[in-house]
Amino acid sequence: MHKQDVARAFAAAAFTLLAPVAMAQTTLAPRDVPAKVIPVPADVSPQLQAVIARPLTPGWNTPPTTPQGWKQLADKLDAATAAQVGPMAQRLHVKIQSGMIDGVHVYRLTPDVIPASNAHRLLVHVHGGCYVLGGGEAALPEALLMAGMSHIRVISVDYRMPPEAYYPAALDDAMTVYKAALKMTKPQDIGVFGRSAGGAMTLAMMLRAEQEHLPMPGALAVNSPMSDDVDEGDSAYTNALVDNNLVAPGGYCDAAASFYAHGHDLADPMISPLNGDFHGFPPTILATGTRDLMLSNTVRTHQKLLLSGVTAELLVFEGMSHVQYAMDDRIPEDRQAFAEEGAFMNEHLGH
Amino acid sequence: MHKQDVARAFAAAAFTLLAPVAMAQTTLAPRDVPAKVIPVPADVSPQLQAVIARPLTPGWNTPPTTPQGWKQLADKLDAATAAQVGPMAQRLHVKIQSGMIDGVHVYRLTPDVIPASNAHRLLVHVHGGCYVLGGGEAALPEALLMAGMSHIRVISVDYRMPPEAYYPAALDDAMTVYKAALKMTKPQDIGVFGRSAGGAMTLAMMLRAEQEHLPMPGALAVNSPMSDDVDEGDSAYTNALVDNNLVAPGGYCDAAASFYAHGHDLADPMISPLNGDFHGFPPTILATGTRDLMLSNTVRTHQKLLLSGVTAELLVFEGMSHVQYAMDDRIPEDRQAFAEEGAFMNEHLGH
Repeated sequence: MHKQDVARAFAAAAFTLLAPVAMAQTTLAPRDVPAKVIPVPADVSPQLQAVIARPLTPGWNTPPTTPQGWKQLADKLDAATAAQVGPMAQRLHVKIQSGMIDGVHVYRLTPDVIPASNAHRLLVHVHGGCYVLGGGEAALPEALLMAGMSHIRVISVDYRMPPEAYYPAALDDAMTVYKAALKMTKPQDIGVFGRSAGGAMTLAMMLRAEQEHLPMPGALAVNSPMSDDVDEGDSAYTNALVDNNLVAPGGYCDAAASFYAHGHDLADPMISPLNGDFHGFPPTILATGTRDLMLSNTVRTHQKLLLSGVTAELLVFEGMSHVQYAMDDRIPEDRQAFAEEGAFMNEHLGH
Repeated sequence: MHKQDVARAFAAAAFTLLAPVAMAQTTLAPRDVPAKVIPVPADVSPQLQAVIARPLTPGWNTPPTTPQGWKQLADKLDAATAAQVGPMAQRLHVKIQSGMIDGVHVYRLTPDVIPASNAHRLLVHVHGGCYVLGGGEAALPEALLMAGMSHIRVISVDYRMPPEAYYPAALDDAMTVYKAALKMTKPQDIGVFGRSAGGAMTLAMMLRAEQEHLPMPGALAVNSPMSDDVDEGDSAYTNALVDNNLVAPGGYCDAAASFYAHGHDLADPMISPLNGDFHGFPPTILATGTRDLMLSNTVRTHQKLLLSGVTAELLVFEGMSHVQYAMDDRIPEDRQAFAEEGAFMNEHLGH
């Protein structure tokens, strides 16, 4: 069964009451799961409990239908996120500078403390937001967490997005910055990372690097990757209406990805890199949460990396929906997530 | 909220229709999740699809209430599993010998091919089965997968269980065999592993080893551990009635654990090792599945190991319920799981 059918089934359902519908991907018997009430876990921080207790993202299943509508939604959501960036940078002791690299807008993030071993290291960040949201300063929370916890410089790519530009503009911009990074330092001193669409782009950048005979970087961090836009895996069902961020298939994120693809085949490994060849990829750390709609995308990507002979480590965070471990340094679990990802970068870069 | 309340709520519900009931662990708003139908994933092997399509374990919420009832259930279930052991040993090229070590019944598993680098290595296996089931030859599928894929010798501990003996008899027997192993080879050449209750016992053995000033082994494999019997974590709710093996809190496994504890505090780290101190533990690999009722127990154990400075790697398998990656070598994903766990043992033992 294709995602579009699932999407229709979910989107057609009422907001808080989803009628059982036949959605078999195979001819084998599906699992009927009755309605249930899931408490906020008692064993996570109070800050994370407050995130878990939030209602489902308002309007998750009524995405915009026009370019202007998408622009308005992006502006509204991104302004709210961008407002958190200044205080977060202060708390994490990271300086932010806006700039351009070969025609692409970027943010340069510099930790106040950079140990000598990290002087030549550089991380390239590609933000999430379903290829349509999360640009400008709204891109920076994840990048700040990584810079602050790893003590490595970060260049965050503010790639072009619809309605300004469609596939493959975002990937082109990310590659432009990656090529510039290769001129700044050794490949093995470069890390690339991103969450959600940015996790998928991190993987797609490696496929492009292989196509263009560019050297691989030293390490990757691939967070809740949108790595398969056609078959999103089992957690798209098991965590549907459990994840309070993406919520369910057929929501705004799928609509945004189609808006970005602009008629291009969603199964293309440059959009769904789980369909690509991972052999030769550098050491990779992946993260997700137990309630993440993209739990299955993440664990399938992890297994495929292992099967391709890549060093790959997986983190799964208790009770977290999509990318909630990469949002706010005031959540202890978010700091822990990037302490672990930063340690991975520090362990694997430079070899 | 305590597990017993959850257990009552789940056990009181009808077999295939669970009414929404208030189960808040905190005063924060819980998530209302409507009924849904979850298809069998299209992206796993046909052999695994057949496992995922199985109905919920018959009688999961009507556990025995007498010692004789438990014995009869164990005999019935274990006979069915034991019948698979001979052919599985042949396919995996492993020889099985029954024997005794210092009064404890064990099985010695010897791979037909043992490379020179593994000549002195030894794995100690503690089986699962909620401390009441899975003894005798029914213990061996996981042990055979590990022996066959790692090419390392395995001693599987057929520890005493209720109604023959209660806590801490099982742990005592496992420690007897671990102490014997320490006389056979160097600590760093020993690995310890197990699934479910055996995963919890593997962790509890390390706590006991520290109490008794015994050396740590070289590596652990902790699979879907029953590591917290009081607060089973978020997946006890999110995967309730999604997991077709354990099914939901309040089922036979919780009843069995209480039968084993025999009045002893379930929160004791020797039964719920997530409450113990993991500092100084050896490198550990953990596995679970996206549908595992103990997904949260596994990922919380992984995070606690990392926070305790332990090298720890996590595997999560698509669409799998509790310990389904450790059941049958004819499922390609099960062979892959133990190829990965075996590689971990081969990487970390002997250092």
